[in-house]
Amino acid sequence: MIGDNNDKRRGSVNSMKSASDLRGVAGGGGGGGGGLGLNNAAYINEGLSDSTMSVQQPDSEFVGSNDFILVENDKKHSKKEAIKSIVPWMKRKAERAFTKKMLYRRLPILNWLPKYNSADAIGDLVAGITVGLTVIPQSLAYSNVAGLPAEYGLYGSFLGCFVYIILGSCKDVPMGPTAIASLLTFQAVSGRGPAHAILLCFLTGVLELLMGLLGLGFIIDFVSGPVSSGFTSAAALIIVTSQIKDILAIKVKGATFTEQWISIFSEIHKSSIWDAVLGISCIAVLLIMRIVATIKIGPSNVPENEKCPAENKPTLFHKLVNKFLWVFGTSRNAILVVIGGCIGYSFYINGEPPFKLIGDIPAGMPEFKLPPFSTVKDNATVTFPEMVSDLGSGIVVVALIALLENIAICKAFANGKTVDATQELIAIGLCNIANSFVQGFPGTGSLSRSAVNNASGVRTPFGCFYTGILVIVALLFFTPYFFYVPKAALAAVIIAAVVFMVEVKVVKPMWRTKKSDLIPGLGTFIACLTLPLEIGILIGIGVNLLFILYHAARPKITVETLTTRTGIDYLMLTPDRCLIFPSVDYVRNLVTKHSIRQAAPAVIDCSHIYGADYTAATVIETLTKDFAGRDQPLIFYNLKPSVCAVFEGLSPKEFIVCYTEEDLDRILKTKTDYKLKGVVTS
Amino acid sequence: MIGDNNDKRRGSVNSMKSASDLRGVAGGGGGGGGGLGLNNAAYINEGLSDSTMSVQQPDSEFVGSNDFILVENDKKHSKKEAIKSIVPWMKRKAERAFTKKMLYRRLPILNWLPKYNSADAIGDLVAGITVGLTVIPQSLAYSNVAGLPAEYGLYGSFLGCFVYIILGSCKDVPMGPTAIASLLTFQAVSGRGPAHAILLCFLTGVLELLMGLLGLGFIIDFVSGPVSSGFTSAAALIIVTSQIKDILAIKVKGATFTEQWISIFSEIHKSSIWDAVLGISCIAVLLIMRIVATIKIGPSNVPENEKCPAENKPTLFHKLVNKFLWVFGTSRNAILVVIGGCIGYSFYINGEPPFKLIGDIPAGMPEFKLPPFSTVKDNATVTFPEMVSDLGSGIVVVALIALLENIAICKAFANGKTVDATQELIAIGLCNIANSFVQGFPGTGSLSRSAVNNASGVRTPFGCFYTGILVIVALLFFTPYFFYVPKAALAAVIIAAVVFMVEVKVVKPMWRTKKSDLIPGLGTFIACLTLPLEIGILIGIGVNLLFILYHAARPKITVETLTTRTGIDYLMLTPDRCLIFPSVDYVRNLVTKHSIRQAAPAVIDCSHIYGADYTAATVIETLTKDFAGRDQPLIFYNLKPSVCAVFEGLSPKEFIVCYTEEDLDRILKTKTDYKLKGVVTS
Repeated sequence: MIGDNNDKRRGSVNSMKSASDLRGVAGGGGGGGGGLGLNNAAYINEGLSDSTMSVQQPDSEFVGSNDFILVENDKKHSKKEAIKSIVPWMKRKAERAFTKKMLYRRLPILNWLPKYNSADAIGDLVAGITVGLTVIPQSLAYSNVAGLPAEYGLYGSFLGCFVYIILGSCKDVPMGPTAIASLLTFQAVSGRGPAHAILLCFLTGVLELLMGLLGLGFIIDFVSGPVSSGFTSAAALIIVTSQIKDILAIKVKGATFTEQWISIFSEIHKSSIWDAVLGISCIAVLLIMRIVATIKIGPSNVPENEKCPAENKPTLFHKLVNKFLWVFGTSRNAILVVIGGCIGYSFYINGEPPFKLIGDIPAGMPEFKLPPFSTVKDNATVTFPEMVSDLGSGIVVVALIALLENIAICKAFANGKTVDATQELIAIGLCNIANSFVQGFPGTGSLSRSAVNNASGVRTPFGCFYTGILVIVALLFFTPYFFYVPKAALAAVIIAAVVFMVEVKVVKPMWRTKKSDLIPGLGTFIACLTLPLEIGILIGIGVNLLFILYHAARPKITVETLTTRTGIDYLMLTPDRCLIFPSVDYVRNLVTKHSIRQAAPAVIDCSHIYGADYTAATVIETLTKDFAGRDQPLIFYNLKPSVCAVFEGLSPKEFIVCYTEEDLDRILKTKTDYKLKGVVTS
Repeated sequence: MIGDNNDKRRGSVNSMKSASDLRGVAGGGGGGGGGLGLNNAAYINEGLSDSTMSVQQPDSEFVGSNDFILVENDKKHSKKEAIKSIVPWMKRKAERAFTKKMLYRRLPILNWLPKYNSADAIGDLVAGITVGLTVIPQSLAYSNVAGLPAEYGLYGSFLGCFVYIILGSCKDVPMGPTAIASLLTFQAVSGRGPAHAILLCFLTGVLELLMGLLGLGFIIDFVSGPVSSGFTSAAALIIVTSQIKDILAIKVKGATFTEQWISIFSEIHKSSIWDAVLGISCIAVLLIMRIVATIKIGPSNVPENEKCPAENKPTLFHKLVNKFLWVFGTSRNAILVVIGGCIGYSFYINGEPPFKLIGDIPAGMPEFKLPPFSTVKDNATVTFPEMVSDLGSGIVVVALIALLENIAICKAFANGKTVDATQELIAIGLCNIANSFVQGFPGTGSLSRSAVNNASGVRTPFGCFYTGILVIVALLFFTPYFFYVPKAALAAVIIAAVVFMVEVKVVKPMWRTKKSDLIPGLGTFIACLTLPLEIGILIGIGVNLLFILYHAARPKITVETLTTRTGIDYLMLTPDRCLIFPSVDYVRNLVTKHSIRQAAPAVIDCSHIYGADYTAATVIETLTKDFAGRDQPLIFYNLKPSVCAVFEGLSPKEFIVCYTEEDLDRILKTKTDYKLKGVVTS
């Protein structure tokens, strides 16, 4: 049986070898080889060796890190080859950058425009208008979050939409001001006025574009779910706090969350009863209308193609009522603003209204001009470098968080398709650059509006076109009427939108899956509330990265005392991850400690060691030397050829590698026989 | 055969289960379980299943990260247990902190003093005096590197030695000023005078002590071999550069390496021929004497107990000559300083010597007093907070680099024993605190002197006693004679010592083992030369940590198309490391891409996935949902129970886990049969 087993394994190894030749990665070269010259391609899934193998040709994108590419034995040859192949390689790279495929990736409009049909057009029209009815009140309100006059929100809500139609890869993204981007803009600009915000928009766009061209979209992979949730929740609470002043019509001082709440409580006696009643009832109305949108009357919806009795199907009346409820609930922001405006107007014509209104908004389109590369403050010119240093790290943070928000939307509606972070970076980068030419402040895809967009049945990014048109119409004709909208109503729009961004619901699944993930999550949340937002999220990310480093530094090692068939006891040590500089001394100490305590031959099972570095090689060299000094055998079992090549780079003495159980038995026997013989003769 | 194989595996799994019950870690609880309720302890080394298992009881220190500890099924039970067990656990912890074992670890003198014998005494005496002859000239010279008067080096070379005898765990460490610690002191103090240096010594000591008590010694694990080599090499070149001014007797301006060399070349025409000739000949003499120490005449040494013909054995004459050459070569610094002093004296009595001398050194022992917590500069008091902010990050950097140097020595002479970083931190921390009471500047174990110490046959840390006594004797009686030592001779002592710290020799093995390790190595080297040292090493460490993060973010995934015995094609994807937040989206994209392209059932082989987090669980949930939406089976093969528990925390639908090839075959058959049936009926 055992013989069979071994033969089978060897068979599978051979088939693997030829297979790996086929795909040109690892295994074939036989670089490592191991001290005993055994077959070195044993790093495969043994449990599946019965299956017939037919390995497919992977394209170059599969290779994650270059850890697994074997160091070739025949170095001279490969060096010459390498030099020769540089020119064609560069040519290939250049060619690849200008292929048709790449063109379609960089201009996603080419994918959907030729296939555009009437169904698409209707879907996009409905969705675009619905989103437009949401974006107009929201952008008026978010300007307030950003600390800017209300019109700037509208300025940043149309040109970016048009650019996104051409470049956007995700149909559900509605480009424009968002709550978090507005808050970050507020913190970066910190009351220095619109010129700084517009420049921030331009610089953010340039940075995003550059990151896209350099393929740096992967950076957001380092923001984990818990950190992202903690940040979003804290941002939502900060935004709610920032709106309390408009609900209560009081003046709030302080920069941080705690300072603002202290200020609110000390000023609360001065609050205006009219504003407060209006604001709180607006919030209540919005929350109720939000529920109305989800109400379904009649039988619950069943898929069209399922067979079911006719009485269980919704009638036309049911369908119409459901649709009306949904439209009514979804346009709640627009309806509230219109009604609020009417109330404001009716008070205004009878004298000074008892609550605050938005006030004058300049009518008409913004001027199309270069973003302000210098500005005047207190009769002194603020130069470009000064403005950049005013904005500081805000530029980087806005760019990264905008990307994070945008990719989150793409992922949420991807339906199992892959998301092209590079293309999205390029798209939102150019959108922001465009917006900065019409005095917009930084924006990105808005998660709340994307849900509306998706639910309204958007089919292509062309839905954005109607949104943009609606915003332009609003700018041209409706700005005089915005005068009468009460500030408290706008604050209510914001509060009712962001209060659901506080992600309390993720705590429970986090607790159930991995409790330690609550640490970065809660850490980010608390840090973002107590410190400036960008510092808060950086702390959260930092703490989370420490987890990775800790994992890399402290592998788990299983220690077992085993016995071979020939009756030789030995120590089996199985580290579960790679041997690299932070962990290798720890592993050495453990191996040394146990092997000294047991005084048996030690076998290190390297099945799970996928990588190693120079530091590991030096420590392994010392380890083999130590074992040789103690006359204790040390055997490396199932060491991947690429890792073996790293260790052999230092030519350690007594470096024994084996790949099959049979060989392990044989080596252990030889070693202990020799030792016994040595003892007998001396 | 296949049946045999499976039976065998199952058998081994069962034996493993009982074994893991025995040791109380993983496997036993069966926490994860998997969607199909299969045996979940399959994460063991199958290749060795024939061996009889007898698992040993590991003590608590083995557990690296808590990844592998199973989430217990019986939660209520375990919670109650946990609450009950807190008190005894704290008791055990407290008891453990005050055990006899811990006492022996914290006072290593208890280990060797009771066994101290005459052979130890002789070995320590010889080594202590030899090191003393090295440390006196070196400490005079290193004060110059630190930018302090020469006597401060001697002040820092005796009390620390005595403290180390009691607390030091490594016999070869000679506590005192070192080249790198002196250079870092120079950079931190930057010409503010001895008071700052002494306070730095105190604060460094306190920080080291605190790090020791908090068990933070692991921090230096994050300094890899290449970074350490790059830093040491750059520091050596900077020290050499700083001594050029004494060799040429010119004034050198500038803080960085490049600035200093520019200044040297512009001032070189002013250099004094006498100083230059003296300095260069001293360097030549030292290098020659260094070679002399390694000369062996007669037959090459063979171990005593080997049998060999008498004529091949070294005679008494050979032995004596060899010993003399070694002592002569090893005391080269002391000999050079004495001869230099004689030359200086002979010139001095005949008028002004043509080269610079050290000049006056205050005679006698330093006063024993508190380190200066405030100082006076330009008639203004510099307070403690001001002094601390002057020293800045220097405090942390000196502490860390001192630890790094010290641990490097311990490791170099450990002979396969483990090094107790915590104890060494406590020891050097208290040594530095003690030194600060006698006006010493920061020191640590010196690598060059430890080699002398080891080669002189030191047996216990008591060798330091004689070194300390020798330094005291020098302070009491020899300081008047140091007046005549030429500065160029001291500069030569430094240059001849540090020039071998430029680690050119590590480049080749680094190239042979892992070429990418040259990036942090060279990066650190260049950054340390061009920027302040502490910034340089931080950049190096940062770059190196990026490597780890990159590894965590981009696992290698092997993609194969396999066929089961029953003829079903499926896609086998094998990620090679853990699924955590930076990598999981990448993995999802790859899996999605391939599975859509192949349209076959997908199997993810999780044998190498040792950990997962909440972000991974959310992505896995989306992945299973996507696959269910496409009606494409997705099976997780050989998923570790602990990782399975993480994924199941979100209760993903259609989450299928299996642990044997047989089950995989069966599930694939059921799934495809169902699908075929579905196609036929519809």
